[in-house]
Amino acid sequence: MRIPILKLKDCLLVSIQWELDDQTALQFQEDLLKKIHETNARGVVIDITSIDFIDSFIAKVLGDVINMSRLMGAKVVITGIQPAVAITLVELGIRLDDVMTALDLEKGLEKLQQELGD
Amino acid sequence: MRIPILKLKDCLLVSIQWELDDQTALQFQEDLLKKIHETNARGVVIDITSIDFIDSFIAKVLGDVINMSRLMGAKVVITGIQPAVAITLVELGIRLDDVMTALDLEKGLEKLQQELGD
Repeated sequence: MRIPILKLKDCLLVSIQWELDDQTALQFQEDLLKKIHETNARGVVIDITSIDFIDSFIAKVLGDVINMSRLMGAKVVITGIQPAVAITLVELGIRLDDVMTALDLEKGLEKLQQELGD
Repeated sequence: MRIPILKLKDCLLVSIQWELDDQTALQFQEDLLKKIHETNARGVVIDITSIDFIDSFIAKVLGDVINMSRLMGAKVVITGIQPAVAITLVELGIRLDDVMTALDLEKGLEKLQQELGD
């Protein structure tokens, strides 16, 4: 299983709608970075509204993918973080301090476009 | 495997990035119609840029999903139809006469929003 990555203007959109297994998460990380490179994307919105539980491995992959994207020059907005996910992220010490967040995909995209000055 | 369906304003976005097997195609049909109902979406963009071959079953499901979405009140734009896919669709007699098409997801969304008067 792979997670589709959509390109819209200079942003990439990803919606994770089912719990990820470890292999899918790593594949997603690789695919996303490759896509940022291919498309010269300046921003990424990752919507995790449908995820209401994440384990430590997935949380780490998510944290990593945000840092890696940033290194490649793309701003990341995470949208739709559920209460339980927020708790897990903080308890595991995954620091998302300087990551933008928003309520849903639409607001995330708006925020990103503001940030990118579109 | 299921295909994520993203909601952006009053449109749904779907990007089919890998060849569908029959089961996934039927699941997609069901998921999309359910999502149109849940979200009151007025438009759907289905991007098939990455699909360079479709068989008769998938072509039929695609034709059906377009008609069904229309019955539910949502306009459909298909984007990124590859030459081989266009040939298959016409040869199989899948009529997409009154379906809007566009080159890519972005142009499809623009077309849809014009059509919806946003």
